[in-house]
Amino acid sequence: MEKSSRRSFLKKAGVATAAAAAVSTVGAPAVRAEKTYQWKMVTTWPPHFPVLGEGADKLAEMIETMSGGRLKIQVYGGGELVPPLQAFDAVSQGMVEMGHGAAYYWAGKSPATQFFAAVPFGMNAQGMNAWIYTGGGMQLWEEVYAPFNLKPMPAGNTGVQMGGWFNREIKSIADFKGLKMRIPGLGGKVLAKAGGTAVLSAGGEIYTNLERGVIDATEWVGPYNDYKMGFHKVAKYYYYPGWHEPGTVLETFVNKKAFEALPKDLQEVVTTAAMACNLWMLCESETKNNFYLEKMVKEEGVQLKKFPDEVLKQLRKYSDEVLEEIAAGDPLSKKVYESFRKFQKQHQAWGKISEVAYASIPD
Amino acid sequence: MEKSSRRSFLKKAGVATAAAAAVSTVGAPAVRAEKTYQWKMVTTWPPHFPVLGEGADKLAEMIETMSGGRLKIQVYGGGELVPPLQAFDAVSQGMVEMGHGAAYYWAGKSPATQFFAAVPFGMNAQGMNAWIYTGGGMQLWEEVYAPFNLKPMPAGNTGVQMGGWFNREIKSIADFKGLKMRIPGLGGKVLAKAGGTAVLSAGGEIYTNLERGVIDATEWVGPYNDYKMGFHKVAKYYYYPGWHEPGTVLETFVNKKAFEALPKDLQEVVTTAAMACNLWMLCESETKNNFYLEKMVKEEGVQLKKFPDEVLKQLRKYSDEVLEEIAAGDPLSKKVYESFRKFQKQHQAWGKISEVAYASIPD
Repeated sequence: MEKSSRRSFLKKAGVATAAAAAVSTVGAPAVRAEKTYQWKMVTTWPPHFPVLGEGADKLAEMIETMSGGRLKIQVYGGGELVPPLQAFDAVSQGMVEMGHGAAYYWAGKSPATQFFAAVPFGMNAQGMNAWIYTGGGMQLWEEVYAPFNLKPMPAGNTGVQMGGWFNREIKSIADFKGLKMRIPGLGGKVLAKAGGTAVLSAGGEIYTNLERGVIDATEWVGPYNDYKMGFHKVAKYYYYPGWHEPGTVLETFVNKKAFEALPKDLQEVVTTAAMACNLWMLCESETKNNFYLEKMVKEEGVQLKKFPDEVLKQLRKYSDEVLEEIAAGDPLSKKVYESFRKFQKQHQAWGKISEVAYASIPD
Repeated sequence: MEKSSRRSFLKKAGVATAAAAAVSTVGAPAVRAEKTYQWKMVTTWPPHFPVLGEGADKLAEMIETMSGGRLKIQVYGGGELVPPLQAFDAVSQGMVEMGHGAAYYWAGKSPATQFFAAVPFGMNAQGMNAWIYTGGGMQLWEEVYAPFNLKPMPAGNTGVQMGGWFNREIKSIADFKGLKMRIPGLGGKVLAKAGGTAVLSAGGEIYTNLERGVIDATEWVGPYNDYKMGFHKVAKYYYYPGWHEPGTVLETFVNKKAFEALPKDLQEVVTTAAMACNLWMLCESETKNNFYLEKMVKEEGVQLKKFPDEVLKQLRKYSDEVLEEIAAGDPLSKKVYESFRKFQKQHQAWGKISEVAYASIPD
């Protein structure tokens, strides 16, 4: 555009939009009849549980606000309406419209679900998000949940978790022999290969089990959530890094019929709110983890320990075996595993010259 | 809840919600008159520019869909309505309602803006997001933009950028002496301290300037965007890591009066869409960067080079000086700088035992 014509354009545009910026109303007000929807969301978390349950609350709030109250969602903590691990079935069967959890809880329904939550020695939050949103992961996840009449969406991420709380030092892989540890999912299968025993405990029982020696060790999430559980009072060593859950994806899932019954605007409201909550949850974890890690080390005398490299290398080998076994179990798991692995390899290659190279600059 | 009462509750709930999942209508349809809004968004990017301009397009689309067409946003590439670097003024003055860019472009308006885009040796995408959304950064950003009648929001992130394209090797800090490099913002100030000359070139001129030797080097974004610019045809070496832009935040900004004139549901639609786009843009970059990096190295013979540690250490010192100077310049910059630095320190402490420890596990 010529300078002079641009100037006169700006002038005209300025006049035309001075009022528009304040009012911005175009045409006559639209009058329309609108259905309202009242949904229930069941979750796998204790009510309003820090970060995870709060993320579910936030998701419902955002949807209600964005929909102007047309889609209201009542959130239920685990056990308030159905037990935590029945959330999947409750939504699948249309008893409620929506759920909030983590996909590895549903390994019994379809082993492939586990790739959409946490994979030992898998990708971090940034990699998981890239794979799911723009690397083909989302389509596969939908395929895995479709037979259950569910539409899944990522709705949160814990970031790299901690390796867990121990009362004995881990100096070699042999130290896992006979270790009774609360560690769910694929991490538990890896522990079993190392000669340990993976124990399942509901969240509320872990502290007491650890205190009484029913278990020798436990993993949970990261400094913020772990502090709230009080594990520092009953365990000596806090190990890192969380090789078993390097970027755990939290999910929401919606009954497909209920989702399809929504008008298109509300469908987009739900998926976009989940995406925003995904980012919020990671931010909240990162921010709070900083604070509580320091607090535990400085005020509570927590001893931070890093797993020795040799131990991690061996755990990675076991982990590869576990993943291969799952992939060999059914065609859908194989398909998901191959997509995951391929993307991880590429993401790592780029990560080496971006995130890792940057983080490695010496002080 | 007792087992038996739970069972009967489930039964009742099942009956009550079987229909609800399919229809979910509560009460009579609401009839309401609704205003519609037609906005313009000016951007600092060429129209539909990969990732950055596409992110602006996507933001407008999400808002239109979520609002059921009540808020329509026409997106203009840089220069289509106003020149790229007049986007800030155009929205500030209410000529248009919305803009899309990066906060460091507005350093001339307020030096503190720069902390909300890219800080040399600052935080990566994960850290920037945590600081802004949950670490107090957002409130400061709003304070910085308030005098301009603007409401800012993060709307994208490039991830760790590349260090740039060079035709001579960088073996020591002395190699920056006399180097004419296209590098905007704080990175350019750091280059100047190393004896180089920071040249400003609009995106469309960089290739020709580099080809003709008007500049010796240029940085741009990352493998995907850089490939599209064709720099591999006119420069030998592709350096990493991008110390000057380790997690550049892209932004959208809305005229405050226009924002406040929206009903609450549409306000939430705008902020949530920006948050979701923020995550999408990072995912898209990460996914595409993988692919184009490999392509350039394998098919185009691009030589990847890492800046020597000694060079990076010296650049970090210069960068600290630059940031201190900006902080000393005005009270608001000081306030933002202090918040940024404090958060970065905590985030790095946590990062060392989470992201960095995880990424450092040997193969």
